Amino acid sequence: MNAYLECIPCFFRQALEQARLFTGNEIVHKEIMNEVAALVPRFSLGLTPPEIAREMHKLFEKRFEGKDVYKTIKYQSNRRAMELYPKLKEKIAQSEDRLLTAVEFAIAGNVIDYAAKNTLNIEEEIQKLLKGDFAAGRKGVFEYESFRKDLGEAKTVLYLADNAGEIIFDRVFIEEFCDNRKVIFAVRDKPVINDALMEDAIFCGIDKIAQVISSGVDAPGTILKYCSGEFLNIFRQADLIISKGQGNFESLSQEKRHIFFLFMVKCPVIAKETGCKMGDIVLF
Amino acid sequence: MNAYLECIPCFFRQALEQARLFTGNEIVHKEIMNEVAALVPRFSLGLTPPEIAREMHKLFEKRFEGKDVYKTIKYQSNRRAMELYPKLKEKIAQSEDRLLTAVEFAIAGNVIDYAAKNTLNIEEEIQKLLKGDFAAGRKGVFEYESFRKDLGEAKTVLYLADNAGEIIFDRVFIEEFCDNRKVIFAVRDKPVINDALMEDAIFCGIDKIAQVISSGVDAPGTILKYCSGEFLNIFRQADLIISKGQGNFESLSQEKRHIFFLFMVKCPVIAKETGCKMGDIVLF
Repeated sequence: MNAYLECIPCFFRQALEQARLFTGNEIVHKEIMNEVAALVPRFSLGLTPPEIAREMHKLFEKRFEGKDVYKTIKYQSNRRAMELYPKLKEKIAQSEDRLLTAVEFAIAGNVIDYAAKNTLNIEEEIQKLLKGDFAAGRKGVFEYESFRKDLGEAKTVLYLADNAGEIIFDRVFIEEFCDNRKVIFAVRDKPVINDALMEDAIFCGIDKIAQVISSGVDAPGTILKYCSGEFLNIFRQADLIISKGQGNFESLSQEKRHIFFLFMVKCPVIAKETGCKMGDIVLF
Repeated sequence: MNAYLECIPCFFRQALEQARLFTGNEIVHKEIMNEVAALVPRFSLGLTPPEIAREMHKLFEKRFEGKDVYKTIKYQSNRRAMELYPKLKEKIAQSEDRLLTAVEFAIAGNVIDYAAKNTLNIEEEIQKLLKGDFAAGRKGVFEYESFRKDLGEAKTVLYLADNAGEIIFDRVFIEEFCDNRKVIFAVRDKPVINDALMEDAIFCGIDKIAQVISSGVDAPGTILKYCSGEFLNIFRQADLIISKGQGNFESLSQEKRHIFFLFMVKCPVIAKETGCKMGDIVLF
């Protein structure tokens, strides 16, 4: 999908939050705001939000020489999610429809998103999840039957990861279908916000159940023109693609491949684009 | 108070909302976002938010040749508030402490603010107001006793208006104390957002109870360096100044004059600055 003009204020807000993680120096924060402002005329409305976010991210990469300022946050998210793993497995074991519960969990894990964090209370969402009323009344578009059918027929599944921590929720989901098929789990190539990297996937044990690869992209989304050849081959050949998170949706919504998008609606622009409400969980 | 870096995303949001009122042409919207972006490096952190808003407003003034795009909105706000006038008077007549009820109403009127409207539901607030539970549990700093005492001693009161519509609420408040003292009611000089102008004050009958003057300023605040000589004389000599709204607070919070600020906390920056919560009503 193309960026909306509403994304511009949001980019400034994100840039400011990130700048504050990198340094406490307010003069530097203002310089970064000036640099983001200088990018605005280049933000064509024909670009997707992750393409713009990538440009913005390059400012940080250049200024802070690639420092992974979310490293600790990602580690904590992974650890926190790992603690939940046994409970998630237990809930799935008790549920009437294991796959449905697992896919709901996978979407629930999508609350762990620092780019949109100001609108979300992660702990509250997790408590809802464990009580079992997470999905109640918040299903937007939710094409579960069609997903179950297509998954049943797929021999290879490409799974596009989103955030660190969240990937534990992806893991419990993948564990419901990886026995009978090949799963390829794609992560970002370089640190970008709290998006999952190879090290997060390994830390969370995804490499035990799927083939973990890098998409080749250093943006908070799967921008095909920047993806590696290896990734593109799999992207073109996989029977089914599962795309997690808003960033992957934003960059792939216009692709003609057979993709199921799973995410929580976290901003008004995505709500408008999908016809859903803020906080809705979607699968389509 | 000086602007915070958090104000920058908010300026873009406001610029976009205003741009959409002026025209439906998305290319023009983007051009305006580019123009606002070009101002960002000039947004010194030593400026107050209304000073920055004034620069931004000049872009619209230039592009749309001073067109008052909020004219209809202001007229509707005035009309809607006029309808409430008899009810407000009735509530005051029934109350134990007329002045307290009137000052609460004056602050309640401050919900009518299109610059911050996305966080407020005006009709809902008005319903709360008429039910009498508007102020319950939301008083931040509220120095009413000190205000009552100082008002009792004041012979001249300068009242700094904020928005159209809201000024009806100011009127019922002023009617509680204008019999024994001279009240000067200052409005903006030129159209800026939905801020009250001379025509709004006259439409709402404020000229019957107070001397209405222009502050000389074409910004959503009272920036003294742009005020007229007439206004500044009154500003320096009045026994008491009542300042309505965030914009006037933002531009006058560092002045050494005897000013009571009345407003509703509508943004996280003002919440931080005042130590209050979003939605709190303040008088200090």
